[in-house]
Amino acid sequence: MSAEPNTMNQVRQDEKETGRVEAFSDGVFAIAITLLILEIRVPEPGEGEEASSLVTALLELWPSYLAYLISFLTIAVMWVNHHNMFRLIRRTDNALLFLNSLLLMFITFLNFSTALLADYIKHPELQVAALVYTGTMVVLAGLWNLLWRYVTAHRHLLASNVDPALIQTINRRYRSSILYVIAFLLVFVSPAAGIALVLAMAVFFAITASTR
Amino acid sequence: MSAEPNTMNQVRQDEKETGRVEAFSDGVFAIAITLLILEIRVPEPGEGEEASSLVTALLELWPSYLAYLISFLTIAVMWVNHHNMFRLIRRTDNALLFLNSLLLMFITFLNFSTALLADYIKHPELQVAALVYTGTMVVLAGLWNLLWRYVTAHRHLLASNVDPALIQTINRRYRSSILYVIAFLLVFVSPAAGIALVLAMAVFFAITASTR
Amino acid sequence: MSAEPNTMNQVRQDEKETGRVEAFSDGVFAIAITLLILEIRVPEPGEGEEASSLVTALLELWPSYLAYLISFLTIAVMWVNHHNMFRLIRRTDNALLFLNSLLLMFITFLNFSTALLADYIKHPELQVAALVYTGTMVVLAGLWNLLWRYVTAHRHLLASNVDPALIQTINRRYRSSILYVIAFLLVFVSPAAGIALVLAMAVFFAITASTR
Amino acid sequence: MSAEPNTMNQVRQDEKETGRVEAFSDGVFAIAITLLILEIRVPEPGEGEEASSLVTALLELWPSYLAYLISFLTIAVMWVNHHNMFRLIRRTDNALLFLNSLLLMFITFLNFSTALLADYIKHPELQVAALVYTGTMVVLAGLWNLLWRYVTAHRHLLASNVDPALIQTINRRYRSSILYVIAFLLVFVSPAAGIALVLAMAVFFAITASTR
Repeated sequence: MSAEPNTMNQVRQDEKETGRVEAFSDGVFAIAITLLILEIRVPEPGEGEEASSLVTALLELWPSYLAYLISFLTIAVMWVNHHNMFRLIRRTDNALLFLNSLLLMFITFLNFSTALLADYIKHPELQVAALVYTGTMVVLAGLWNLLWRYVTAHRHLLASNVDPALIQTINRRYRSSILYVIAFLLVFVSPAAGIALVLAMAVFFAITASTR
Repeated sequence: MSAEPNTMNQVRQDEKETGRVEAFSDGVFAIAITLLILEIRVPEPGEGEEASSLVTALLELWPSYLAYLISFLTIAVMWVNHHNMFRLIRRTDNALLFLNSLLLMFITFLNFSTALLADYIKHPELQVAALVYTGTMVVLAGLWNLLWRYVTAHRHLLASNVDPALIQTINRRYRSSILYVIAFLLVFVSPAAGIALVLAMAVFFAITASTR
Repeated sequence: MSAEPNTMNQVRQDEKETGRVEAFSDGVFAIAITLLILEIRVPEPGEGEEASSLVTALLELWPSYLAYLISFLTIAVMWVNHHNMFRLIRRTDNALLFLNSLLLMFITFLNFSTALLADYIKHPELQVAALVYTGTMVVLAGLWNLLWRYVTAHRHLLASNVDPALIQTINRRYRSSILYVIAFLLVFVSPAAGIALVLAMAVFFAITASTR
Repeated sequence: MSAEPNTMNQVRQDEKETGRVEAFSDGVFAIAITLLILEIRVPEPGEGEEASSLVTALLELWPSYLAYLISFLTIAVMWVNHHNMFRLIRRTDNALLFLNSLLLMFITFLNFSTALLADYIKHPELQVAALVYTGTMVVLAGLWNLLWRYVTAHRHLLASNVDPALIQTINRRYRSSILYVIAFLLVFVSPAAGIALVLAMAVFFAITASTR
């Protein structure tokens, strides 16, 4: 497209461009977040006559509910994050698309980590599963930082009217992702503590993270 | 984005903003409604020679068909509901996104409740499964009310030309969600009656709920 | 929304309205068509040493490939159909949304019918499975006709510049859906012939159906 | 639509038209890429007490991770490809929609080929699985070429301001898809080498493929 289109067309073209990246990403986010429910398996109807056996079976699924809750909130927060970041982005280039794809790959991978965590919460090998889970979070945090750093280092990808003060604010917020590294390290001491920190972060970000 | 964009851009920006929330929500709705079919499992090909054994096996799947029908209609009605609510919304803030995420989480959870209901309809512990199912509906009804209350309490989130009379009408309509609480309580007396009420509501809303 | 917006806003509003119905429908079409692949199950790695055992196992999956092909083409053709129909539609009302939801429900149900057909093609009870499969097609054809009839009977739902001759052409085309009834009836004589007719129609429509 | 709409409407109509094809395709891409994770199955919690048994089980899943990585990158690259191709396309016709559907069918089929490859990497019959996997890639490469050739042979489908030099550049790039045929043939000599070539291509295209 070497021909120079007029400004109006350029704007429309740009919008369309990031529009499809956002649409594709939204699709992956939406599917990844919805597939999480498939990991909670319905207890097999048994032959027991006593009224409380299904209640017990449902209560014993708490690791699945917990893992579901943490991962759902985390993906939802990441979607809001993606939404906010791409509101500032007007153009895409190949490196941006590649980083975005890697990010989506690990968001999808969270389905595996979540199922692993749920299946091993009551098992002696919980520590391994918790390391995989928090490790996935560390990789995700790293990719978010990389993506944001790349975009701010290539200002032509950003909308021209983005306030530099806003970029500083976001830079500061991204620094909090060091907490995922702490959660990962905490698992070596106490898996429960590490998972609790990830849950706390998911709830904290879900409630407080500003969309501006 | 402290810079003051002109009104035209503002409008476009706002549209784009709710646009992505709607697109993401549409994705979750579409996936949640489509995954329901995975809960109807094809009967294993047996070795019987008599022509009627597959017919019998297919007929015995009626709890799955019934649960599928109720949940599909319910999610479809909720999608129309979401569609209508967001036609009035022009801006989003973090609390709105959070409430919307919680709503989507329980819509997704309906897949689990539906599978549970289908597996236990012919089982002595149907009551427990029916309580989980109608309980999920109660939570969903509560979240819808919360979301609508939040939006109407923060008028700047609504389009400026929304007629106050329309808001009153919707307020009244939302009050009918008390019927889900009645369905939940009815399950203690008769699980079948509770489920029948939820089905009746799904069909009623699907046929009559006005899009205006 | 009793306030009278100006024409420009009206147009935008209308576009947005059908836009979301189309987006939601696209989502369901895309998911239903993609989930089909989950029904083709990878053969278990056996212990046989002879080089041809996986080849044999893959070849024996032909009923799954065939059912996958027919259903994929059918859903793809129906998506094109939906796309073409909604290009003419400018407004939606509740009945339209309801009919559209029923249509999507049976498109989703096709996943079950397809799995059933694939599992029973080599089984003595193929006839039952083929009746369910072609029966699903008959219901779908009926819903398409109903949807189109509803829209043409309520002209205010259509774009104002739709050529009446075009409507006549589409009316004629929809009459060909009687072939699905013939396929259904043919199954009573020969299941293979009935399925072959559905396949032939999927290929024929996929290749020839005009988008205008 | 025989009535002649004004140019402005024509542009909007065209945009909307390719818009829905892109939205539907994005949906299929997003779902196909996300479903890949379902093929990595969580190891069953065993009864072993020794701390390393889950670590071992997770490490032994490497064929699944590898197949996941290759297929994820491949689908991501194809999505970028689709995105770039449709940025140049302004109109659709039935043949284009049909070719696009076939393309989506084989992208979906990649889920099956990926699962097959992962399950057979450590099995004596890896060659058969690798032939199916690289064969799927060959079919996909062929369909991409066919689609691009069709579009360039029917210039009215392209945007009027597309630079002929750009078309030449893309023509050259598409020629590299011959490498998939080489990967397929390589499998007859060494399955590992054939798969390595496909992986190398996925990484190479993911990093270097220009979006212009």
